[in-house]
Amino acid sequence: MKYCFGVDIGGTTVKMGLFEETGTILDKWEITTDTSEEGKAILPNVAASIEMKIEEHKLIKDDIIGIGAGVPAPVTAEGVVNGSANLGWTYKEVKKELEELTGLKSYIGNDANVAALGEMWKGGGEGEKNMIMVTLGTGVGGGIIIDGKILVGSNGAGGEIGHLCVNYEETDQCGCGNRGCLEQYASATGIVRLARQKLGQEMRPTILNKQDVTAKDVFDAVKAGDEVAKEIATVFGRYLGYGLANLAVVADPAVFVIGGGVSKAGEVLIPYIREPYMERAFFANKNVRFVLAKLGNDAGICGAAKLVLDNE
Amino acid sequence: MKYCFGVDIGGTTVKMGLFEETGTILDKWEITTDTSEEGKAILPNVAASIEMKIEEHKLIKDDIIGIGAGVPAPVTAEGVVNGSANLGWTYKEVKKELEELTGLKSYIGNDANVAALGEMWKGGGEGEKNMIMVTLGTGVGGGIIIDGKILVGSNGAGGEIGHLCVNYEETDQCGCGNRGCLEQYASATGIVRLARQKLGQEMRPTILNKQDVTAKDVFDAVKAGDEVAKEIATVFGRYLGYGLANLAVVADPAVFVIGGGVSKAGEVLIPYIREPYMERAFFANKNVRFVLAKLGNDAGICGAAKLVLDNE
Repeated sequence: MKYCFGVDIGGTTVKMGLFEETGTILDKWEITTDTSEEGKAILPNVAASIEMKIEEHKLIKDDIIGIGAGVPAPVTAEGVVNGSANLGWTYKEVKKELEELTGLKSYIGNDANVAALGEMWKGGGEGEKNMIMVTLGTGVGGGIIIDGKILVGSNGAGGEIGHLCVNYEETDQCGCGNRGCLEQYASATGIVRLARQKLGQEMRPTILNKQDVTAKDVFDAVKAGDEVAKEIATVFGRYLGYGLANLAVVADPAVFVIGGGVSKAGEVLIPYIREPYMERAFFANKNVRFVLAKLGNDAGICGAAKLVLDNE
Repeated sequence: MKYCFGVDIGGTTVKMGLFEETGTILDKWEITTDTSEEGKAILPNVAASIEMKIEEHKLIKDDIIGIGAGVPAPVTAEGVVNGSANLGWTYKEVKKELEELTGLKSYIGNDANVAALGEMWKGGGEGEKNMIMVTLGTGVGGGIIIDGKILVGSNGAGGEIGHLCVNYEETDQCGCGNRGCLEQYASATGIVRLARQKLGQEMRPTILNKQDVTAKDVFDAVKAGDEVAKEIATVFGRYLGYGLANLAVVADPAVFVIGGGVSKAGEVLIPYIREPYMERAFFANKNVRFVLAKLGNDAGICGAAKLVLDNE
């Protein structure tokens, strides 16, 4: 049996997994991300943790195909990062450094893209080769899989779908400096913004609390039948559905996989997204499926392992 | 030396080329497209023409790697077309039929996508592996090349960029049934529509003729310094630039190649597109280049030949 490691490097923890080449997860663990001194200990710590697991599982190094890693930054095709705010990195040759530290072939990708690959392999996109994962978290991230491979792009910035413009009339600014980005409406933060706007001018009774409302509150209230919450969800879904219709006309996916913290609201989300999508979708893209992500926090380590297996 | 054929099947003519595997074009010719009886003679005519050229050039069939063909329709990964209005085809297994007719390996793609591949190989996108070609003709077509390969998509409908929504406030309908498609502003027809709208409410002097204006007239007038024409070009460029900014955030190209009849206006077009692009582009996508297509009508046969060489 051959093995590989999947590593998901986040700003707080590094999630790691040991996989059989068949895809079975043998072990799963985490270490703390040491972002001090420009994050210089992060990759050495990952390498040391992998060495320990190799010993613990009594593996022979020749049986290990390689290491895959997702990092929170654009990554070039050569495995280079030109800065990651979350990790403290400036320019870093991640692939080269990890290979030198471990002696194992390494494959590096952007974390959202790698998670999308994981969902294609074992999650919501299983069985498909053309899919788009949309991660509705603090921001809106995503990954586009074309013919089974991550769309990396010329700057490693492919699939930055949170910054699709979906409203050319927006006056509020997105964190990126533009106005009208999908992230301003469909992230957890964006939903709170929409809720506050709505609640500020709403006279009808609602179970939502104007002072202290979260994205989860909004969808809990939707499930409880709250009309005001439903209207907030409608605005959220319209921008997201319109944005996904524009994505589909470019990438023609078979399935959209909806993940991230907001997606924990569950199936209740889907009709709010699908209906405006169908209203705007190009006829050739109307047969797309919408599904929830399935792997949760494991998407990153799974996708990272798949990076290795695909490049074997 | 090995050889291949590149075929560009249009609604009026079929353009064909004989290529050396090095990329040199040895011969170029056209035959008429016979669209009668659901276009049933089209592929047999192509096959017969190829057989004649093989004899004429005294080639040995074993030295021919294959045939590439672009067709005006979405094409699945299996080389199947589910209908082409321009050719009269309903369901057609193009790859299978062409292989049976010629005994040569065949590779089929959508014509706009194949032309994009041609421009990447020998035209405006030469040297790049991530590019987007935008064809501004009667409609707006395009092709997206990711890591050197055509983005085909799950329905063969990848890169349908004429139907990106760039104006959610539009009330006029696009041919596709939606409102606000890029094609409504950036095609030759769309530019005429913008010009008529402008000229209908314009009091200033202009060399443009309200009754009979073409896209070429508009850009000729721009070159002559006509202020009204410049404002029409500004509206055209804003929608196109905004649309390309949304494309870039998805696909992260190194270069946009602008082709089609409208692009014959030349370099004068580029600043009208680049300026609004830069205003809306995500920071990671600001280093993209804008260039004019170089191959003209040869893009299709070149890209079709490249399809063969890439799959060799």
